[in-house]
Amino acid sequence: MIQVGIIGANGYTGGELLRLLNQHSQVEVTVATSRKLAGEPIYKVHPHLQNLDLKFTSVKPEDMEADLVFTATPHGASMNIVPPMVEKGIKVIDLSGDYRFDDISVYEKWYGLKHDHPLDAVYGLPEMYREKIKKAHLVANPGCFPTGAILACLPLVDEDLTDKIIIDAKTGVSGAGVKPTETNMYTNVADNVIPYNVTSHRHGPEIQEKLSKFSDVSVSFTPHLVPVIRGILSTVHTFPAEDVTSSYVKELYDNYYKGETFINVLDVGESPRLSSVRGSNYCHIGIFQQDENGRLVIGSSIDNMVKGASGQAIHNMNIMYGFEETESLEYLGLHP
Amino acid sequence: MIQVGIIGANGYTGGELLRLLNQHSQVEVTVATSRKLAGEPIYKVHPHLQNLDLKFTSVKPEDMEADLVFTATPHGASMNIVPPMVEKGIKVIDLSGDYRFDDISVYEKWYGLKHDHPLDAVYGLPEMYREKIKKAHLVANPGCFPTGAILACLPLVDEDLTDKIIIDAKTGVSGAGVKPTETNMYTNVADNVIPYNVTSHRHGPEIQEKLSKFSDVSVSFTPHLVPVIRGILSTVHTFPAEDVTSSYVKELYDNYYKGETFINVLDVGESPRLSSVRGSNYCHIGIFQQDENGRLVIGSSIDNMVKGASGQAIHNMNIMYGFEETESLEYLGLHP
Amino acid sequence: MIQVGIIGANGYTGGELLRLLNQHSQVEVTVATSRKLAGEPIYKVHPHLQNLDLKFTSVKPEDMEADLVFTATPHGASMNIVPPMVEKGIKVIDLSGDYRFDDISVYEKWYGLKHDHPLDAVYGLPEMYREKIKKAHLVANPGCFPTGAILACLPLVDEDLTDKIIIDAKTGVSGAGVKPTETNMYTNVADNVIPYNVTSHRHGPEIQEKLSKFSDVSVSFTPHLVPVIRGILSTVHTFPAEDVTSSYVKELYDNYYKGETFINVLDVGESPRLSSVRGSNYCHIGIFQQDENGRLVIGSSIDNMVKGASGQAIHNMNIMYGFEETESLEYLGLHP
Amino acid sequence: MIQVGIIGANGYTGGELLRLLNQHSQVEVTVATSRKLAGEPIYKVHPHLQNLDLKFTSVKPEDMEADLVFTATPHGASMNIVPPMVEKGIKVIDLSGDYRFDDISVYEKWYGLKHDHPLDAVYGLPEMYREKIKKAHLVANPGCFPTGAILACLPLVDEDLTDKIIIDAKTGVSGAGVKPTETNMYTNVADNVIPYNVTSHRHGPEIQEKLSKFSDVSVSFTPHLVPVIRGILSTVHTFPAEDVTSSYVKELYDNYYKGETFINVLDVGESPRLSSVRGSNYCHIGIFQQDENGRLVIGSSIDNMVKGASGQAIHNMNIMYGFEETESLEYLGLHP
Repeated sequence: MIQVGIIGANGYTGGELLRLLNQHSQVEVTVATSRKLAGEPIYKVHPHLQNLDLKFTSVKPEDMEADLVFTATPHGASMNIVPPMVEKGIKVIDLSGDYRFDDISVYEKWYGLKHDHPLDAVYGLPEMYREKIKKAHLVANPGCFPTGAILACLPLVDEDLTDKIIIDAKTGVSGAGVKPTETNMYTNVADNVIPYNVTSHRHGPEIQEKLSKFSDVSVSFTPHLVPVIRGILSTVHTFPAEDVTSSYVKELYDNYYKGETFINVLDVGESPRLSSVRGSNYCHIGIFQQDENGRLVIGSSIDNMVKGASGQAIHNMNIMYGFEETESLEYLGLHP
Repeated sequence: MIQVGIIGANGYTGGELLRLLNQHSQVEVTVATSRKLAGEPIYKVHPHLQNLDLKFTSVKPEDMEADLVFTATPHGASMNIVPPMVEKGIKVIDLSGDYRFDDISVYEKWYGLKHDHPLDAVYGLPEMYREKIKKAHLVANPGCFPTGAILACLPLVDEDLTDKIIIDAKTGVSGAGVKPTETNMYTNVADNVIPYNVTSHRHGPEIQEKLSKFSDVSVSFTPHLVPVIRGILSTVHTFPAEDVTSSYVKELYDNYYKGETFINVLDVGESPRLSSVRGSNYCHIGIFQQDENGRLVIGSSIDNMVKGASGQAIHNMNIMYGFEETESLEYLGLHP
Repeated sequence: MIQVGIIGANGYTGGELLRLLNQHSQVEVTVATSRKLAGEPIYKVHPHLQNLDLKFTSVKPEDMEADLVFTATPHGASMNIVPPMVEKGIKVIDLSGDYRFDDISVYEKWYGLKHDHPLDAVYGLPEMYREKIKKAHLVANPGCFPTGAILACLPLVDEDLTDKIIIDAKTGVSGAGVKPTETNMYTNVADNVIPYNVTSHRHGPEIQEKLSKFSDVSVSFTPHLVPVIRGILSTVHTFPAEDVTSSYVKELYDNYYKGETFINVLDVGESPRLSSVRGSNYCHIGIFQQDENGRLVIGSSIDNMVKGASGQAIHNMNIMYGFEETESLEYLGLHP
Repeated sequence: MIQVGIIGANGYTGGELLRLLNQHSQVEVTVATSRKLAGEPIYKVHPHLQNLDLKFTSVKPEDMEADLVFTATPHGASMNIVPPMVEKGIKVIDLSGDYRFDDISVYEKWYGLKHDHPLDAVYGLPEMYREKIKKAHLVANPGCFPTGAILACLPLVDEDLTDKIIIDAKTGVSGAGVKPTETNMYTNVADNVIPYNVTSHRHGPEIQEKLSKFSDVSVSFTPHLVPVIRGILSTVHTFPAEDVTSSYVKELYDNYYKGETFINVLDVGESPRLSSVRGSNYCHIGIFQQDENGRLVIGSSIDNMVKGASGQAIHNMNIMYGFEETESLEYLGLHP
């Protein structure tokens, strides 16, 4: 049994950590912080967590007592909160973008921030870096779009089948966070589709950096907001140098993800869909025949709050501590 | 470890049983029937259940081998399927309306069917009949609307505070089942609200019969279809014979449901909402101050597929076998 | 051709006035105010109004030049803006609650404001007060809930058939306005139903005051927020002193609303639905048979932004100026 | 005043024709056919059209009396219905795919049908072929996806700036028609995104054929079903041979569509969205800066039922008869 803290427990990813860890047999959540809500019971902002007997507290990072801490804090805040805890020997899984980039200059350019406290961190995509995660003290949990996009592209890229990838992603609104804005208002989102940061979203460079470790590939990325609460559907368009059959691609993906509990490579031609992974830590991958112009399409679906954030963070924790990888992540997608 | 069968596993309630029982440490699902889909893997119709290594089969009731069977079959079908299994000593939890009524003539009137095979059954609302359920061989799982409505009204009625109740319910579309119809088409449901069977829904008499065991009360019921996948919000309007304070009502409900894991009586004035119980077996109950005309309002929210159907059925099974009542039902609501 | 101003043109009801008046052959919108957005083209906040060649301006009420002004301003603001314009001889249609109540003390109690500038105003429900509206200088446009609820109840009440009415209303999110809040966030509204101000919504007293002019009746009102952009479905539950047949009620309503273009009394048993009136100025009314307890149910559907606000305001203007009542309101509901 | 017939008036595009033509000052709809519903009033299937005093009839094509007929009939049916009417001198606007292709073999391959009755037809995209439409006797109304996609690409292609285009489209559910299927069930669509016919949708070849008239370009097309009632958002990804500035592209589009009432080229960087064109005949086009890989993105939004079907058909009729092009199409988008 380990003791776990959550910094920034009032947001959506904090709420997901609390919801999921409630099932974990090896974990006790002892601290859930929120400066604004210190003293309030959890259920005041998370009405679905009526049964959790826990209150928000306010703890300075340097005073934190825990074996592991999840920092569900905004970009720019984590870089000040994480280092004091790492120094104290607390393991940290950071859900912000602050420790995701190897190349700090890319981070600084795209996040518009100066990074004062770089640290060695492992990029926490288990299907990519499981062995490194086992030994990590600081894990940078991947962005939601990069999670779905990389999982869809990785076997192709690692096999060096293509040098140019276009990712057209569709995301649910929970990715915009818990704070009300014009972007996440019901009347602006419902019955609507809106492309945004069309050629300038900062998850593009994150995908670019991670895939570039595997082969020389250029990544173009465009997200769309769709009237969905949870989920990201990534549609990858690419033109392999040589034509490939769908059965070849299917076998490539099956082999690549063999043994990965949370990856389901679907039958050829079967579409990934958000409802199949809703509320779960699974990623569904769909493979389709090339079209007449040699275009190959791969699709993936994840729940942005679980596999794209809090579930993957727990998966990383399970790996770090040698727990069953599926602990508290067993639930299957909520369909319908 | 018991062996469990599901008859009619291709529908939504069948899918929910499979999804939830996947987590159960004491249960093995050995048979999942579908006449049309015999031989097909489960995931062909339940794409979220990719990980279940099980195929649909077709088994006659009299040939069924199992300790307990869930019959997720239509009204009118269950009455022919259930008796042969009960005779063989198999315990049965029936999710149809066929065994819910004590007064068969009421059933026959409202379902427009002649009932050929009446049997002794226990009405499977654990908060009402836990002791009887423990010893039951046949449990009639309550209707979705009656579950939410009865839980909202029961303390009031048992305390004999009112003699007339109006229930205005709002339900998600999954209650209409897995078969495409004009009623459950996206274009007819989305951005819409539609009252239906306004003064003639057959769940009205079910609520009436069950509440009448506790005191003399008349029940008027109207359902509405709202653009929601899962969930029922029941708004109960009633005029107590004498004025009551909201703190009195709160205390009444708190005491009535003390020890009931799946019932959360909210703070006075806090609204129950569907998202708080989405995907879970919980029922949230909201209590509000009387208005100037002496009207008292109680609200309740459930997930119609879980607490209103398959989750409650599993809860009943857990009670029948002395398992932990929360086995495979631990998950909290999926919000957002 | 008259010249029309809109004060508060940046909100939803202001946008609707602009959208609808664009079709009006007798009206030129010459002023559309927004203090914050003065100088900006309309389409910056109303992206659907790309074609309007008009900019926001900032004009003090006492400097306003127009034949008629719509004040789409918040409760409490209108009472300061309206009087100077009325004094100048400008006709005003106020969309706030400030001039709706005959009894100022009721207004002050429910709005929590002191009313400094009471004026004679006509309650702008054309089906109720057409003759008075013709001669009005100041029209108080009805609240959205009162519009749908009163139209559903009025024939019953005017015929003195009942003395107690319960209105259970379901509203779309646009009623919450253009400003982002936790209430109107997509993640809080979608796939959800939430009762609010359950026994204390200020539209209850407005309905009560208006219906009380026709007979002695007590009104209890509860609204719910549903995942819908536009529309209000009002379900009226009542127990007539004597039983009535549905054909009697149908005839009563048909006669009452004879000649009213915007009222459609549906065939008995046919449900009103939001999609049938979406984007239009129509009100659909559904009549249902009494249930076994003598409960009679009447339902109505309106678009809260059109019949419940800006469309009705234009209807009032048409009546005041003797224009065709349907001018710029001809469009039928947008279904699907 | 001309007399107009609608064949297949019970479907969604038929309903839209009826709804929109209700506003037309020069048109009387004299015949609205539906074999199944002959004798029934229109509002029985189109509950929003309560005010239309018209009944469905059943008329053989050879007995049709009208100046112009809209055939809102399925692919494969139109080819038998259209020729007898054209022979009688009736002008026809066909909303099916039967007369869209110049190359019949492409049609036959992608629709899996043999075409028995080829006729000369004009492809009814006014922004492309206005002059030909003026003189046409048979207009083939474009597919919904081709309408949005072609309008987004045409200036680029006509200017020969690129030789490869990827179109990633997101469509509302109304495009799937009025018949209930698993595809258009609420529970399968809501809170979901589903790619379909990923590399094999027959609107791909339609776009390919039409754009190929303007330059040598390869078109790859993938549609997605999103939880939206109406609307298509087309995201065009392309890599111009030489880099282009966004202001250059903006000017190119502004010039290309100068004088086109129904095309709004948005400010650079402004996203097209479905809500801005909902219920209207407008097409919004968004232009975005190239990304670091030289990818240029153009987006467009239309209402698939109006600009993508019935509205465009009426626009074509207006052009054929020299009516005001905007007659019965004046309404702006319904936002929110």
